[in-house]
Amino acid sequence: MVFRLSLADSTFEADFSALLSAKREVSEDVDRVVRDIVADVRARGDAALIDYTSRFDRADVTGRLRVTAQEVAEAYEKADAATVDALRLARERIASHHARQKPENDRYRDPLGVELGSLWTAVESVGLYVPGGTASYPSSVLMNAVPAVVAGVERIAMVVPAPDGALNPLVLVAADIAGVTEIYRIGGAQAIAALAFGTETLPAVAKIVGPGNAYVAAAKRQVFGTVGIDMVAGPSEVLVLADNTANPDWIAADLLAQAEHDVSAQSILITDDPDLAEAVAGAVERQLRTLPRGAIARQSWDDFGALITVPDLQAALPLVNRLAAEHLELAVADPEALLGGIRNAGAIFLGAHTPEVIGDYVGGSNHVLPTARSARFSSGLSVLDFVKRTSILKLGPDQLRQLGPVAITLARAEGLDAHARSVAIRMNI
Amino acid sequence: MVFRLSLADSTFEADFSALLSAKREVSEDVDRVVRDIVADVRARGDAALIDYTSRFDRADVTGRLRVTAQEVAEAYEKADAATVDALRLARERIASHHARQKPENDRYRDPLGVELGSLWTAVESVGLYVPGGTASYPSSVLMNAVPAVVAGVERIAMVVPAPDGALNPLVLVAADIAGVTEIYRIGGAQAIAALAFGTETLPAVAKIVGPGNAYVAAAKRQVFGTVGIDMVAGPSEVLVLADNTANPDWIAADLLAQAEHDVSAQSILITDDPDLAEAVAGAVERQLRTLPRGAIARQSWDDFGALITVPDLQAALPLVNRLAAEHLELAVADPEALLGGIRNAGAIFLGAHTPEVIGDYVGGSNHVLPTARSARFSSGLSVLDFVKRTSILKLGPDQLRQLGPVAITLARAEGLDAHARSVAIRMNI
Repeated sequence: MVFRLSLADSTFEADFSALLSAKREVSEDVDRVVRDIVADVRARGDAALIDYTSRFDRADVTGRLRVTAQEVAEAYEKADAATVDALRLARERIASHHARQKPENDRYRDPLGVELGSLWTAVESVGLYVPGGTASYPSSVLMNAVPAVVAGVERIAMVVPAPDGALNPLVLVAADIAGVTEIYRIGGAQAIAALAFGTETLPAVAKIVGPGNAYVAAAKRQVFGTVGIDMVAGPSEVLVLADNTANPDWIAADLLAQAEHDVSAQSILITDDPDLAEAVAGAVERQLRTLPRGAIARQSWDDFGALITVPDLQAALPLVNRLAAEHLELAVADPEALLGGIRNAGAIFLGAHTPEVIGDYVGGSNHVLPTARSARFSSGLSVLDFVKRTSILKLGPDQLRQLGPVAITLARAEGLDAHARSVAIRMNI
Repeated sequence: MVFRLSLADSTFEADFSALLSAKREVSEDVDRVVRDIVADVRARGDAALIDYTSRFDRADVTGRLRVTAQEVAEAYEKADAATVDALRLARERIASHHARQKPENDRYRDPLGVELGSLWTAVESVGLYVPGGTASYPSSVLMNAVPAVVAGVERIAMVVPAPDGALNPLVLVAADIAGVTEIYRIGGAQAIAALAFGTETLPAVAKIVGPGNAYVAAAKRQVFGTVGIDMVAGPSEVLVLADNTANPDWIAADLLAQAEHDVSAQSILITDDPDLAEAVAGAVERQLRTLPRGAIARQSWDDFGALITVPDLQAALPLVNRLAAEHLELAVADPEALLGGIRNAGAIFLGAHTPEVIGDYVGGSNHVLPTARSARFSSGLSVLDFVKRTSILKLGPDQLRQLGPVAITLARAEGLDAHARSVAIRMNI
């Protein structure tokens, strides 16, 4: 039975708080194992990569760590033509949208004549982690690589494990379409270590992005500082806010599209229409019966799903902001009217004809979004994750004469005399 | 003796690599201690804060965790009037510069009629850590708090330890001038835990920023995910690129202004003029003699300082980009000519009359900048650290008809049938 809450209940606040703090992910303690692997790859380079790949992926990658252009060409031959076309269209739409995110340099002179500025430059090289096996999604390759290409990153090195030697052809095709410059058939903590420290075959990168399992996440945390990393993504989640205009079958399908990802995924409906809530609950049960990944979706729905009823849509907004969902669907008659009241969400999908799944693939916006309530303080992946800002300051003698004494006053107040001298020496004071 | 390198030497690459990888910070293994403190504060709230503050800061904060308005008013009375004025001017300049960093919302319709957008909102609440004792800098309070205020953050809760009950009045004054909304006299891992999880007196925040010792840094890493955190700052560093127009006394003063921060700070000169390098080395020795913090600066300069000579300034640029310094001074005749060749730097100070110290206090740009070569992949603190972006997607029936089949193709290729159904059910296919 899915969890049901009503804002009218006296136990609502306690129940809702429990929902907010439900721990959906068991964090495995893999730090020590990962630390050893990282140190070994750092010390032994390719030889360590070959050993770990033999052990964990049951594949001999001696002399063939890097995937060849020939293999990529063969992947196109294996791939379904309609799917390749779909990936090309998705890439175009992602590239067009992300091109609008490129920040502009700023350079100006303030009233005192001080010149200030912000110069944006691309990160020189990026590593992209792609999981192997069933979680090896070509759409995620596009979502991670295209913003880097748009930002102007020169080197994009993708790593993807090949369990028993097998690579997903669509992942290679997506990498090629996205503009990935190098592909290596390695995975796990060893691949993260190679990207961070470099080996004979794989030159180190400056930043690593992309999802992975507990070992990959732990390795990313450990190499952070040596390289940049993206956020560590948790299980996916959707929050649907619906009114009585919503089609319960459509809403149920959207809730199950999240639930099929993972037993830890979370799907929540908030509505001002109790009848809709029950109709959706019924539709979920019916649709579950014919779903290939029904067992996964069933467990996610039973463990973490929720139906929340509220007296009116305005009353839902504080709950929406506290949940700070990765994906928020506004399946209501007038979604624009609610937009101004939403503070925390990774992405918002407006109206009945915008299922979240469109955003997963072809909307153009990014599907790498903040999970586990982190939309309260972070954003989805964008071009900004692949650029960095250098600030610029330029004074002439006149400006130094005006601001120098103020800097000296503050430096002395902080007990930093060498700071004060560095200004005073230029002013003969 | 300071380290000397010349690009002409056969050993240059090995020596320069050694300089790049020199470990300036000994990372203390405090994770276990910190984990216990965090768990205790989470469980016992204020009572735990009072216990740890009694133990570590030798102060009884029972019933007075929060600093009162009266105490802030008294701090103004204790503070030097010229310093208060200087803080006010600094705040104005920081606010003016950072106001230009506010990102604009974007909303548009693409050629298919799909509506896309990016909505920026401020983080609701921020915690600001301020170290106690000698590293308690009022300028850092401004640099961390003002961008949050400019971003529109409603709650800014500052924590600052009061060893033996003593608070730096200028830190309280700076907090007031900056717009901090709450001040608590707690520090260490216990303060970070309180900000992340909340206590009876201190409501939890969404993000924590500000520098701290090894315990604070470890606590920030541990609570990351529950709240956002800023980057973990390492020891400060300056790289001066100078030609024969530079005044060696001025350059020496700038190098020592970094070196006085910390024995782990680093000051490097790169020049095409070997005579300048020696003149600077001599000036450093002379100036060290009269510096109050001379012992600290001496150790930093001897252990981590470097003088690097190159045949010409263009040859310096690859070295500058590999060093990726926090602060880069271009003390050359034509600094603008070099700007286009610089890829990695936290902040650049152009020309003889822009000592880095101006940027520490009154330039208007932020002095919280990426250290330890992290300018390769990250940026200084800005308004962007206090806002987050929500993406917007809106399709009507026409747009869904055009993009829906593409999404279905990709969903099926990824084996996600509930994804495909969520689109198909709206198209009667």
